[in-house]
Parts: sequence; structure tokens; C-alpha cells
Amino acid sequence: VPDLNKPVAKAAVIGLGSMGYGMAVSLVRAGFEVAGYDVRPEITVRFAAERGAGTVTRAASAAEAAANAEIIIVVVVNADQTSAVLLGEGGALHAARPGAVVVSCATMAPERSRALAREVAAHGLLFLDAPISGGAVKAREGALTVLASGPEAAFAKAAPALDAMAATLYRLGDEPGTGSSFKIVNQLLAGVHIAAACEAIALAKRLGLDLAKVYEVIKSSAGNSWMFENRVPHILEGDYTPRSAVSIFTKDLGIVADISRAENFPVPVSSAALQLFLMTAAAGMGRDDDASVVRLFARIAGLDLPEQKA
Amino acid sequence: VPDLNKPVAKAAVIGLGSMGYGMAVSLVRAGFEVAGYDVRPEITVRFAAERGAGTVTRAASAAEAAANAEIIIVVVVNADQTSAVLLGEGGALHAARPGAVVVSCATMAPERSRALAREVAAHGLLFLDAPISGGAVKAREGALTVLASGPEAAFAKAAPALDAMAATLYRLGDEPGTGSSFKIVNQLLAGVHIAAACEAIALAKRLGLDLAKVYEVIKSSAGNSWMFENRVPHILEGDYTPRSAVSIFTKDLGIVADISRAENFPVPVSSAALQLFLMTAAAGMGRDDDASVVRLFARIAGLDLPEQKA
Repeated sequence: VPDLNKPVAKAAVIGLGSMGYGMAVSLVRAGFEVAGYDVRPEITVRFAAERGAGTVTRAASAAEAAANAEIIIVVVVNADQTSAVLLGEGGALHAARPGAVVVSCATMAPERSRALAREVAAHGLLFLDAPISGGAVKAREGALTVLASGPEAAFAKAAPALDAMAATLYRLGDEPGTGSSFKIVNQLLAGVHIAAACEAIALAKRLGLDLAKVYEVIKSSAGNSWMFENRVPHILEGDYTPRSAVSIFTKDLGIVADISRAENFPVPVSSAALQLFLMTAAAGMGRDDDASVVRLFARIAGLDLPEQKA
Repeated sequence: VPDLNKPVAKAAVIGLGSMGYGMAVSLVRAGFEVAGYDVRPEITVRFAAERGAGTVTRAASAAEAAANAEIIIVVVVNADQTSAVLLGEGGALHAARPGAVVVSCATMAPERSRALAREVAAHGLLFLDAPISGGAVKAREGALTVLASGPEAAFAKAAPALDAMAATLYRLGDEPGTGSSFKIVNQLLAGVHIAAACEAIALAKRLGLDLAKVYEVIKSSAGNSWMFENRVPHILEGDYTPRSAVSIFTKDLGIVADISRAENFPVPVSSAALQLFLMTAAAGMGRDDDASVVRLFARIAGLDLPEQKA
């Protein structure tokens, strides 16, 4: 229950996809007055209608959303979009109040995060490099994991919103870029593990194994991964409704590829995984669940995978 | 405490490496009379000396070890060695008693296991396709996982030994080859996850991250795997004493490569992982711990990984 004697904290959420929507819901639940904005007008309208005008303001631009906010949460797809909604036409930094904090949640190369931090500082605002993990359900529950880095003042200013949105907050250092680096290392592993799970399940099918039994055995064996355990049920149920889409991993393993090439650093395993996600997207499944990599194998080799129950 | 009124069960253990040694210890503890044999005479001698002549007989050949055994456990490196100790000069099948069961524990292509089953049946013995998982410590504790397939009669005959050696027995069907297929799917994932863990940790080091913090964060995130959690501590401690060697994965991912090529089936992620293990072996680390893949990255890129405390 919000304390009615406390002044209402004001936050902006820029980017109202499934993550941003859930984060805004968590902020409202914690007593924040939230101004929401998305570049897609229909999403902003739907958001305001669903949440009721009393607590959520529908903004016409990122600038309007940010104008009165102490905490500006940017949860768009990538660095380019983050840069556009902060610095582009109608961008948040044109209207934001000095001393406010920008919480940058998109997965991006650490160098992009550092560059954004410099731009934000030049406008007199604080910046937190704060990529998130956990998916849409945890976003709505206020149970995300946040991998954050930035100066103490940015953490302090963002704290009430982080409390409302996250179950686990990792404080990873004073420098922007460190949070993004941790996120990228996590995404490298997550992407490889999904691709490997799909490769293994497809080979198991080709070898004539009972896939439900394979799931049971591997889940309790040294071959298990968080992603194997989480994604293989989608395959067993034949349900490729996107909980997290193939396009997330063409993007995130693409960032791994960019960073590693810029560093002259070889990443052969994640490169192979990226190619599988690209093939799956090229085959028309980019917006489907990321376990669709197994359907790529199935199409290539004519495997008969489980189909969704009607 | 063994029941002294019960007739003593007799088992042979052929192959006294770290796994076979541990399995023989578990059998002795359960009251078996064990005849041990290894192609390396010094290992057979050391084994007999350590265990005491009262319970363990040192055999001069696989045939001698198998001559009085009801359960013949073959735990050598691969299909070729299994075939040699069963069918070659001094092989177990030349002396084994009809009705005994051969428990085949090496990781091998399913087709090789089916071929061995036919040879064993032609000699009037039972055959269990029974690859194992868990490592040397669990072998000594009698806490292995066994992925077994074969006829009911083979399971029944082998049951007392399986009880002594395994914490978890998966019964995966009536046909030899199925147990081997499950093991191969597990090894595909295990190998990819080790290679990915090493790739991710190496990239994290290149990006300047605190590796202990990376371990802490990833362990609690969607990028975690059983292998990441198990192997990264070796890297943090700089300890590459082989708990499981690089050469195990050049072998097992080599079997994945053989099977998948024979099936005309693409396995791009595990192929990339195999190449990393081969590079690590080529760089002279084949007998070191499989986390040595990270040292390959370190050598290539001049990374300063943790060193073992003196």
C-alpha cells in the first residue's frame, strides 16, 4: 500500500514492449506515477487504456514522458533505439530535468553504453548502465535481475525504481559499460545453450529416441543447462509462441560478434550458434520462440517433431 | 556388512582406469569377489596391491578375469578397446561362462554397441548397453548414473552390480544402442557447454571483467549450465589437474561427428566445440583438465588467467 503522505515519485518508461510494459506495471504497483511512451503510437494508447489514466500518463513523445520524471527508464531494443529516444527528435534529453537519472536497459555493446553515458552527463543527468534479465513474466512481477554499473549517485537516484522492478540487483562497478559486458557474456552462453539444446534434441530425434525421456535424463545429467531445462518443454509441447524470439538472439549474438571482432577475439562456438539463429530467421521464424532452431533442423532433415495439441 | 551366509557374487572389471577402479571398489564394498584386469600390467598390479588379495584377484588377461564371473563389466575408453578385450587375443568371451552378462560402459556409437551385442549373444552371454556418467569420485562412492538399455534378462542378471555402482539407473529400453544414443546426446551438450564456458570466460577476461564476479552472476542467471557451474571454479583456481581430460571430449565429440556424418545430419555447434578441444589438444593440453580450453584462448590472446596458489 503506497504511503499517501509521501510525495509521489515520478518515472518515465520509454519503450512499452513486453518488458517495458511489465516494468511500468511494477512501478505503478509500487506507487510511482508513470508516464509511458513507445514509438509505436498504438502501443502507447493500449498501455494507457489498460492501466487507467489515474496512474499512467500517455505521453506523445519521449521528451514529454521524461519532462517531469526523476527516473527515466529506457527499455527499447538496442543501442540505436536508445540513442534515438534520448537524443533524436522529441528525445528525452531535450526535456528531462537536470539531476534525473537515465536507466538504460537495452542489451548493447559496452562501448555504446559508455558513449551514451557521456551524452547523458553532458545534459546534466545521471546514467545507469542497467541491462535486465528474466523475461516478461518477471518484469510484471517486479522480479527481474538487473546487471547494473554506474556511479553511486546514479544508483541512489534510481534505487526506488530498481526496488520496484528487480528481485536481484547486481552492482557491478562504478563505470558504465560493465553492466553491458556482463549481460553480453550471459547472452553468449544463453544463445549457445539454446542452439545446442535444439541441435541435441534434433539429433536425438534422428537417432529415434523418446524426446520426453531425453528431457528427463539430460535434466538430471551433466549435459543440463538453464536454457535446456527451460526451452525443451516448448519443443515437447510443440508450442513456439514467442516467450523470447529468435530475433533477440540474432541481435544479441550479433553484438557478441561485433564486440569480439572489434577486440580481435575469436568466438567460434557462439559464431556457430549465431549462424543457426540466422538460418532460423531466414527460414521465416524470426518472430517465433527461440526454440524454433529445432524446427530448422526438422525442416532440413524431415524430422517429425511434436505438434501442439489443439 | 556383507551377509556371510550368502554365496559370494563374482564380477570382473576390465579396465582399471579412474572409473573402473572406483567401480571395482564399490563392488568390493558391496560384497562382490572382483577379478580385475587392465591392458596396462602396472595398473592391474597396483590395483590388486591396494585392494588386498582377499577380495580382488589380479588377472593376467581379460579371459582370466571373466572366467568365473557372472557379471563382466567392461569400462575401457572406446568401442575398439571394448571389442579388443572381449574378442581379441586373451579376450573375455573366449573364457566367459554362458549366461553371464557383459555390461558395456564405454561411450561409443550406438551401431558399435549393437554390433557388440550380437557378438556377445553369439557366445551365449547377455549384453547390457550401459554407458556411465558421474566421474571418478562418484564411481568410488557407488553413485554413478547409468544410461542402460538391453533385454530384461540382462538387467536382471546385472542388477546386483548396478545397485552397487549406481545412484541412478535409467532403463531406456530393450534394445542395445539406446543407452549409447542417450550418452552421446548428453556428451554433445556437455562438450558444447564446457567449450562455451571457456569462450565466455575468456571474452569476459578480455573485456576486463572480474571473473569471480562473472561466475557469481552467471551461476544465478539464464546463462548457467551444469558444466559452467562445475568447471569455471577450476579456472578461477588455476587448477587444470584432470578431473576429466580434454582427450575425453576430442573422443566423445568425435563420436558425435562420426554419427552425425553417417546420418547426414548437421551439428554445427558441437562441431565448433570439437575444433576447440582439438586445438587445445594440439597445443599440448590433451591430458589436462577439459577447462583447459580457456588456456587455449589465453595463449592466443595473451590473457592473464588466475594461476594456481602454491
